[in-house]
Amino acid sequence: MVISIDSPLDMHLHLRDEEMLDIVAPLSAETFSGGLVMPNLVPPVTSKEDVRSYRERIRKAQGEHRFIPYMTLFFKSDYSPEFLESVREEILAIKLYPAGITTNSEGGVSGFDLEELSPVLGVMSDLGIPLCVHGETGGFVMDREAEFIPIYEMLARHFPDLKIVMEHITTKAAVEALDRYENLYATITLHHLYITLDDVAGGLLQPHLFCKPIAKRPEDREALLKTALAAHPKVMFGSDSAPHPRDKKEAPGCAAGVFTAPIALQGLAQLFDRHGALDNLQAFVSDNARRIYGITPIEKTVILEKTPWLVPEIYEGTVVPMFAGQSLEWRVLSAE
Amino acid sequence: MVISIDSPLDMHLHLRDEEMLDIVAPLSAETFSGGLVMPNLVPPVTSKEDVRSYRERIRKAQGEHRFIPYMTLFFKSDYSPEFLESVREEILAIKLYPAGITTNSEGGVSGFDLEELSPVLGVMSDLGIPLCVHGETGGFVMDREAEFIPIYEMLARHFPDLKIVMEHITTKAAVEALDRYENLYATITLHHLYITLDDVAGGLLQPHLFCKPIAKRPEDREALLKTALAAHPKVMFGSDSAPHPRDKKEAPGCAAGVFTAPIALQGLAQLFDRHGALDNLQAFVSDNARRIYGITPIEKTVILEKTPWLVPEIYEGTVVPMFAGQSLEWRVLSAE
Repeated sequence: MVISIDSPLDMHLHLRDEEMLDIVAPLSAETFSGGLVMPNLVPPVTSKEDVRSYRERIRKAQGEHRFIPYMTLFFKSDYSPEFLESVREEILAIKLYPAGITTNSEGGVSGFDLEELSPVLGVMSDLGIPLCVHGETGGFVMDREAEFIPIYEMLARHFPDLKIVMEHITTKAAVEALDRYENLYATITLHHLYITLDDVAGGLLQPHLFCKPIAKRPEDREALLKTALAAHPKVMFGSDSAPHPRDKKEAPGCAAGVFTAPIALQGLAQLFDRHGALDNLQAFVSDNARRIYGITPIEKTVILEKTPWLVPEIYEGTVVPMFAGQSLEWRVLSAE
Repeated sequence: MVISIDSPLDMHLHLRDEEMLDIVAPLSAETFSGGLVMPNLVPPVTSKEDVRSYRERIRKAQGEHRFIPYMTLFFKSDYSPEFLESVREEILAIKLYPAGITTNSEGGVSGFDLEELSPVLGVMSDLGIPLCVHGETGGFVMDREAEFIPIYEMLARHFPDLKIVMEHITTKAAVEALDRYENLYATITLHHLYITLDDVAGGLLQPHLFCKPIAKRPEDREALLKTALAAHPKVMFGSDSAPHPRDKKEAPGCAAGVFTAPIALQGLAQLFDRHGALDNLQAFVSDNARRIYGITPIEKTVILEKTPWLVPEIYEGTVVPMFAGQSLEWRVLSAE
């Protein structure tokens, strides 16, 4: 069996910088038509010059592959209206991190004081710049996302014209919030469709499946799966593919992140196929994002074939992917 | 400030075998007066000869230190009454593992069929052999202990004269069950008094704090702490000190277990001191166990002093303890 995906998009992607960028950018660019690139570099992407120069580095790293790096800015509450207007054409969205909640988020927002956030959010709303949010509180790790839902709702209420994307949702609570506000959207990763905390820590400890937000309960995974398989019109695929060098993952103090970029389409095809939902894959992995963000990605046709494919143990001797050394039921035949 | 503990007991202890036994046995024997030694070797301790020979190996490994290894047998539903009678004097308890639930538990009990378990449990009840249980189901990792409570209660109801010890409890649910049945007892570890899942996976991933049962929610830890600090008369200290070689802990597929034997008394003193409960430490770490098990440990007086003590990074280049490289507020001054 063979399926064709038209211009797949990865709406939440970490490409990092320097050597890691050189390793991972071609792996996304090979099969995806574009990706929303997260701005949590060290230091974060906060100026027009940062955006432009990071885009150039990505373009250089992606090589021959046709791929659009949709750029984002790291949310700061002190951006001026003039700056936001001037940077509008360079970016697709602005990403908000609560301070210290995940990799390189130290410069993020502390507390969610509407008075502090409103000037920038108001301008974003006026300019039509979507707000992408890593929605976790500093609470107990299993509760952080659910505790954050009232903040999403508060933002959605106060800025009804602002598109707010709940990034990498992991809970039933977030899925349910999606339908309560017209301007709330969400991305869902590959790994949160496959795993629960049981896969991370239920047997032996698996650092390569350790991520933020942490994988949750079986009923949470079920809710995510149901909404992704149905290609809910407000939900997009965003891998949150987050590469770390192997030695950083396989040591105490292991960094959070699952590297899925090069296996994402194969893993999605397997999952949608197993659940008889292949017809919805195109919407989940491309059409919904085009509509929500109003983008027209470059044309790329990806042909996937249902034939066993052995996932590499490691890429460039550096990054271990999800399903490393295991067999997936689908492979990429071509992407042109 | 100085306190004195009379004959401290560790009522849940993994001493392993061979090189690891040689490393860890002296570390327990140095400060503890005795310990209940778990039988999950490979293969498990299931015969009188196994018990005797393991006890001899422990005695040899513990060196000069005065220490009683209280032996246990690995629960099997096909032990004969004659065997149990003949082994009675060699052991203090029998330990029941659900199959595959933790390190070296493959030969444990599958399902909890009362008809299958009753013959052995009935004889144990008649002979006055306590039953120690690793109480977890095969469910979602955060629910396993709470889901097991009905099995504890079923056993407690059917064998009202059998002393049943809920080992290394980690939940509010288990604490609450303690008072519902007269013949239910419990051990609590040091690490479950200190940590929640947040410490294991809330920030960066910490394999040295990864254990089974996994550390739970803040409200669970609070319930454990409250009952331990009060030295609830049915609760005993059991470290569940579970050494693994460093390379097994610091790699993908990290084994479950926190190594606390050499830092346990210091860690307990710090905790009880911080909560103004030092007066209850003697009962928690010795007197309750003497009464529950009806044992008279060898006399050993341990003097602890409130002065900063730097926990070693590693013991014998092999095993990393809890609080490695950190400072505790109490140290062992002498143990004689």
